[in-house]
Amino acid sequence: MGPASGVISAKVRRIHSTTNEEPHDDLLAVEEPLEIRVGFADGKHRAVSITMRTPGNDDELAAGFLFTEGILKTPDQIKQIKHCGPGGNPTGRKGVSQRGLVAVEQDALRAANTIRVDLNEGVDVDLKSLERNFYTTSSCGVCGKSSIEALHTGVTELSPDVSAPIDPALIHGLPAILRASQEVFEQTGGLHASALFDRTGKLEIVREDVGRHNALDKVIGAKFLAGQTPLSETILLVSGRASFELVQKALMAGIPILAAVGAPSSLAVELAAEFGMTLIGFVRDERFNIYTGESRIRSERVTTAATN
Amino acid sequence: MGPASGVISAKVRRIHSTTNEEPHDDLLAVEEPLEIRVGFADGKHRAVSITMRTPGNDDELAAGFLFTEGILKTPDQIKQIKHCGPGGNPTGRKGVSQRGLVAVEQDALRAANTIRVDLNEGVDVDLKSLERNFYTTSSCGVCGKSSIEALHTGVTELSPDVSAPIDPALIHGLPAILRASQEVFEQTGGLHASALFDRTGKLEIVREDVGRHNALDKVIGAKFLAGQTPLSETILLVSGRASFELVQKALMAGIPILAAVGAPSSLAVELAAEFGMTLIGFVRDERFNIYTGESRIRSERVTTAATN
Repeated sequence: MGPASGVISAKVRRIHSTTNEEPHDDLLAVEEPLEIRVGFADGKHRAVSITMRTPGNDDELAAGFLFTEGILKTPDQIKQIKHCGPGGNPTGRKGVSQRGLVAVEQDALRAANTIRVDLNEGVDVDLKSLERNFYTTSSCGVCGKSSIEALHTGVTELSPDVSAPIDPALIHGLPAILRASQEVFEQTGGLHASALFDRTGKLEIVREDVGRHNALDKVIGAKFLAGQTPLSETILLVSGRASFELVQKALMAGIPILAAVGAPSSLAVELAAEFGMTLIGFVRDERFNIYTGESRIRSERVTTAATN
Repeated sequence: MGPASGVISAKVRRIHSTTNEEPHDDLLAVEEPLEIRVGFADGKHRAVSITMRTPGNDDELAAGFLFTEGILKTPDQIKQIKHCGPGGNPTGRKGVSQRGLVAVEQDALRAANTIRVDLNEGVDVDLKSLERNFYTTSSCGVCGKSSIEALHTGVTELSPDVSAPIDPALIHGLPAILRASQEVFEQTGGLHASALFDRTGKLEIVREDVGRHNALDKVIGAKFLAGQTPLSETILLVSGRASFELVQKALMAGIPILAAVGAPSSLAVELAAEFGMTLIGFVRDERFNIYTGESRIRSERVTTAATN
């Protein structure tokens, strides 16, 4: 099998303490910047984000980013999503060689690294929620306030779950399904993955990216574009750790159960608890920890110790 | 041994497929936002970044961020670095409970989540380089250009190394030294680490954080504040993958050798090659791969295959 999309070939010198070193062809996960722009019906557009991502499914990434940031509410607000170009600057990326890497046509790359989400006529969006990342000029006495509270903007509490609790055995089985579907990770070891399952453990969609938030934006963006949000009947598995940002994005999409192969952070647990999400960590080797929302996971015996 | 700084206790329900589930006290890596502000001699200040970080060494983080972003050049530009407060908003963080977590005094937390780097009189800094992350209004035809080229701002090529090449055995030994010094990771599994070694393999400084870029900013910031940059006689080890951003920050600090326990990305390799850095990946189990700059690592036999 050749390299999958999202990888690039490079020559490396491989060192091992007990065997001879060998020049070797290795595969790298591709990382490139993507500038996301919003295009308005009057022809103006604004850059709203630059993210370092693995190319592929950029339309999902852009839509998912704008949805999970609270900018877009419904897919019918979008007229079209397209990469910029052709045209633009005729020179290559200044100062960056392709030594040891498969050559990429620089103009094509540049156009492919900008994507524009054009809004339908009459659609008005509020870009202010993005400003938490940008310059502010409030006085120092309240400086943390707007920034920190802005992080909670737009997240609504999940409805109590009326479905039957999930069998723990189903959770134990998710990482193997994810790994089997991760073609790029197997080749490079360099990508994060997000996978969405239905409540029977059937894989619905998996996306990989050098950025864990991008992998999740792609998953959510695909569902958003298909008109399938909120994702209230799903289970999300992420390959790494569960951060505040991943919990926030999952909440925006209405995902009730987030399971992580790695550890959650303190703020991820706080946010999940506050909005009624089930947060699970360390899903590996037939074990996992439930941090919040344990009622969605079937218990073999009655326990109340974690609900104090 | 009690919890280290940077961790917090939480109750979890631990599930294992073959044993009874047990309520359990677990430790979480603390994640909190930090707003970094620059204070000018005329009394004005501006927020320049919000990052999700593990509290601790915030002064190093702020200084390291401003240095690796090209805002600050020398430590004597800084008058003082201090957390904001007391005062500020008297209410707690809205809508976030501490359920299952050790209670934290909210006012103290808020003040502790903003830090201000005050500049000395007569010091002028250019905050424009930060604007690559912010709104721009250029037309779409050139939209990728400024953004992408801005990523290269301020990075200068490393000088050719005149010291003797490093013994591969020294590289093999670095992860064990890092792990032995990572007290928080051992307890939570939730933190990235950056460690700086001298050319004999002696550990100089290690920092941990939920964000890999923050761990590196703390390491570099500590050295910057001590007047010890550029770090031209050092080896940097990072616990995870090597991204473009980590290579860029290491280059800004003049670090000639970056070794990662995980995989590098394509753009990390491109950037390292362009600026003459030695980039090493998959440092584990007595193996590693050299992607660029192999002349800094001693070769047991002459090989030229990786220098085409």
